[in-house]
Amino acid sequence: MATTTTTVTTNGKKTSWEEAARAKREAILATLPREYLIPEPLPMPEEQPNVTGAFAHKYLSPREVEITETNAADIVTKTTKGEWSAVEVTKAFIHRACMAHQLLGCLHETDFANAIATAEKLDAYFAEHKKPMGMLHGLPVSLKDQCHMKGLDTTMGYVGWLGTWEGDASSPLYKTHESVIVNEMRRQGAVLYCKTAVPQTLMCGETVNNIVGWVRNPINRLVSCGGSSGGEGALVGFKGSPGGFGTDIGGSVRIPSAFNGLYGLRPSNGRLPYEGMANSMDGQNTILSVIGPIAGSVDSIRLLTKAVVDSEPWWEDPLVHEIPWREEQAEKVRSDGKLVFGVLRDDGIVRPTAPVRRGLEAVVEAVKKAGHEVVDWVPPKECDHKLLYEIANTTWGLDGGTDVFKAFGLSGEPPAPHLMVHVPETLQAEKTASEIAALNVRKRRVQKAYMDFWNSTAKTTSTGRPIDAIIAPPCPHPPAMENKFPYTFATTFVNVLDYSAVIVPSGVVVDPAVDKPDEGLTWRSDVERKAHEGFDPLIQKGAPIAVQLIGRRLQEEKMLAVAEVVDKALKA
Amino acid sequence: MATTTTTVTTNGKKTSWEEAARAKREAILATLPREYLIPEPLPMPEEQPNVTGAFAHKYLSPREVEITETNAADIVTKTTKGEWSAVEVTKAFIHRACMAHQLLGCLHETDFANAIATAEKLDAYFAEHKKPMGMLHGLPVSLKDQCHMKGLDTTMGYVGWLGTWEGDASSPLYKTHESVIVNEMRRQGAVLYCKTAVPQTLMCGETVNNIVGWVRNPINRLVSCGGSSGGEGALVGFKGSPGGFGTDIGGSVRIPSAFNGLYGLRPSNGRLPYEGMANSMDGQNTILSVIGPIAGSVDSIRLLTKAVVDSEPWWEDPLVHEIPWREEQAEKVRSDGKLVFGVLRDDGIVRPTAPVRRGLEAVVEAVKKAGHEVVDWVPPKECDHKLLYEIANTTWGLDGGTDVFKAFGLSGEPPAPHLMVHVPETLQAEKTASEIAALNVRKRRVQKAYMDFWNSTAKTTSTGRPIDAIIAPPCPHPPAMENKFPYTFATTFVNVLDYSAVIVPSGVVVDPAVDKPDEGLTWRSDVERKAHEGFDPLIQKGAPIAVQLIGRRLQEEKMLAVAEVVDKALKA
Repeated sequence: MATTTTTVTTNGKKTSWEEAARAKREAILATLPREYLIPEPLPMPEEQPNVTGAFAHKYLSPREVEITETNAADIVTKTTKGEWSAVEVTKAFIHRACMAHQLLGCLHETDFANAIATAEKLDAYFAEHKKPMGMLHGLPVSLKDQCHMKGLDTTMGYVGWLGTWEGDASSPLYKTHESVIVNEMRRQGAVLYCKTAVPQTLMCGETVNNIVGWVRNPINRLVSCGGSSGGEGALVGFKGSPGGFGTDIGGSVRIPSAFNGLYGLRPSNGRLPYEGMANSMDGQNTILSVIGPIAGSVDSIRLLTKAVVDSEPWWEDPLVHEIPWREEQAEKVRSDGKLVFGVLRDDGIVRPTAPVRRGLEAVVEAVKKAGHEVVDWVPPKECDHKLLYEIANTTWGLDGGTDVFKAFGLSGEPPAPHLMVHVPETLQAEKTASEIAALNVRKRRVQKAYMDFWNSTAKTTSTGRPIDAIIAPPCPHPPAMENKFPYTFATTFVNVLDYSAVIVPSGVVVDPAVDKPDEGLTWRSDVERKAHEGFDPLIQKGAPIAVQLIGRRLQEEKMLAVAEVVDKALKA
Repeated sequence: MATTTTTVTTNGKKTSWEEAARAKREAILATLPREYLIPEPLPMPEEQPNVTGAFAHKYLSPREVEITETNAADIVTKTTKGEWSAVEVTKAFIHRACMAHQLLGCLHETDFANAIATAEKLDAYFAEHKKPMGMLHGLPVSLKDQCHMKGLDTTMGYVGWLGTWEGDASSPLYKTHESVIVNEMRRQGAVLYCKTAVPQTLMCGETVNNIVGWVRNPINRLVSCGGSSGGEGALVGFKGSPGGFGTDIGGSVRIPSAFNGLYGLRPSNGRLPYEGMANSMDGQNTILSVIGPIAGSVDSIRLLTKAVVDSEPWWEDPLVHEIPWREEQAEKVRSDGKLVFGVLRDDGIVRPTAPVRRGLEAVVEAVKKAGHEVVDWVPPKECDHKLLYEIANTTWGLDGGTDVFKAFGLSGEPPAPHLMVHVPETLQAEKTASEIAALNVRKRRVQKAYMDFWNSTAKTTSTGRPIDAIIAPPCPHPPAMENKFPYTFATTFVNVLDYSAVIVPSGVVVDPAVDKPDEGLTWRSDVERKAHEGFDPLIQKGAPIAVQLIGRRLQEEKMLAVAEVVDKALKA
């Protein structure tokens, strides 16, 4: 792959990709109000790994702490009643977002002046009408840098996209077009104020690009914020945003949610609108990326999801199904009382590392103690996870890298070495229509086999119903050290099946006194060995461990209710 | 393309494709009970074009006429109350189906003995429990020969598939596997008794293959029954079945419904289960084929659709969305009262022929008279029908013919000349992943533009709502003469948009005294010229003209209610 410096045209001037990236990096920093910045020199990550809580509070007023430490759902109960002003809430989060970017490098774009103007309008609206503009009246919401917003670049981490519409320098859509999710957030009264960092190509469990570099985790700056919605994870994890939207084609909402101690929803295809967003390998239709919320509590991700569904996105995105909010799914979970979980302790490819096993068992014990049933989850060979893994990997390689190499080629910038799990070193042959069709058939058959297996569990559960959810680790190791994320499949099998899944923190954090690397084991594969090499209790100390709660297709309301049950059990 | 006679292996014996086809043809005939057959010699089509009504009644008892002339919905009101026995109803339809096959050649498979045994069990169940087995208790239902049923071949019209599972002679699924729709029909108490003819490849608006030949229209045997669900259309049109299921990727439910004076529904993707069915180019994911009902009244196609939805197919087919029956959509149509229709008089490619225009205007006048509004439907250039046409044609050609050539190659049989609209003469290069992705993006953008245009009509309708439905012809010419069906796009744009559409007979039939070929016109394209060459009032005399009522994605309940409004207006 070409890594030589070539010239790119940015704003009519020819420049190197390094210079274009540096200029953008500085331009982002220049938009941060000076009064919101932590005085330099900043502490080094080794010196101050955790920058949340007490460290952050030193640079905020008590009122700013109160506001920014409040969950999205609770903020909205105040802003929609006029108890908190939109302007005050917005400014508090802008302040904390600026600190987040200083410490973690998590922003691609800011829109602070427009955000404050929007907040002022919302306050004026409330003053006049004595009612909120929408469900999210006055709530700051951050968005992954795949969303197009008027007046802002969308780079998706590509230097070659700077100053263009998705690489097209002549498109009239540049800085004028808005994604459907953006429209809907505005209509619901959200305050949009920034766009967050992504890895080049989006196909990475970390977040790294040549503009903002490698984005850090606020709880432990020695580890990754996750990816690809890593800027969201870092920002929300630092409480520089009360919640936002990422996207997920292989785990990209769930990994950052898990790594930053947050809650996240991966809905099924066709529930939330992707229309008008930038993407990698756009038009690849075998496994579709979905948009999903990341926030600090179950009720906050529910609020964000419901706000979109209640906006009736099926009139704006031709791929969204007309499925209104189904509170009855949640009510059924509550009235059923006893739930049955399948626990996935080993997917047959990678056995999780010690702290991840400990997090998983903490959840299993908590739900058992709350009166629920837990059974082992071992899918049969017709749909075992190796098959699902292979289908996902084949899908990522369908175009042989054509799309991402084109994006790199616009500026001549090199891909980060972190991407090498899913991006080939050189351009490969593309798959043909027949090969893609055969893959689609194979995928459908595995989906059917998994469905039949899930149905079959009704015969063995004490409730007489199929299991309600799978409990599984989102990652075999704790939040990744730099360039040590070899394996996304713990989340990706969910994308192959198009299931709905929620991330819930287990309450367990890495503890070097308890969590030891496994010794004397024989690795079943290179990927298992690498996953275990990705665990170092001394470096990952204090980093959070989460679980995925996985439901079937289009069970978002049910899975949010299940997540609430589990969350309460863990906190009991 | 190879048209030489090669040897194929059928049931362990080597034989030519002609011999294998002849043997199957005779085997089908041999399953028809002799007492149900019309005494030979049969009248020639020219002599007796219309074999429905009085002609058919000559060979049936008054009681058989009473039963078989009753619509599916009305049959079920009797069979579910024990007023009519399942056995009597089943035998009456078996009798008439045998006559249909003699006269039209519309059956691929029969399962009469099992059907009668099923009917006996249903009657015994009712006698014991005093309640029906399901919503379709005792209703005979016919199925297109893409559905797999235990004990029967599925050939899809390919000689090379005889004695195999979709061409695979060693598959254990052969004659053992059942499609999900088959399971659901059985669970709802339907009596399955036959599978109906399709054209080789399924990509044809007529129905023709080397086993049963060219399938005729019961209302006028000089014209086609339509395709690809043409066997269904012919059988239901002859009242040899009260209703059944076809499939539709480009018009294949709607064309046979229209040609045979019937009602048919093309639902959107993900509403009814396709799981476990044979298909052409299986795994092509750009435009998905859907399954839909064909029957003699709106309430009959609603009954068949609701019976499937109420079976909760989302637990059996991983591609079906969990969308229960939404009677509220229908209630809204009724309570709205006034509806607004957009009428598509010319798609910019082919202007319809005279009788089709007359049928369209009859519908327009009827709905206006009933108090509804009709506006012209002229999509803007971002989503004009030429773009949609091109996307569909590109999709059909993605694999360059690989799949269908493979199927022909199994036996060495030649494709029928009728197929040449969509099947290339020689194998073409396959499209690559990037080309397919670009097509998918183009399709999505056109879907979005069409959606935005539809939304924009709210500004001009008197109701303040966007138009409720498009009224459009399903075909520019009347039911096709043999090998004169050059243009399926009047239906296919609906598949590109994944819209829900219902076929309703206009009440107009071809009348040589009124309907004259256009003269002195300049054809805008070859396809327009050919479409007009496909109209001959003397041959197509008496053949029915239908309209499509097209709604947006996943509006099946709404569109069935709209169809009822239009149907009542036409009959007023």
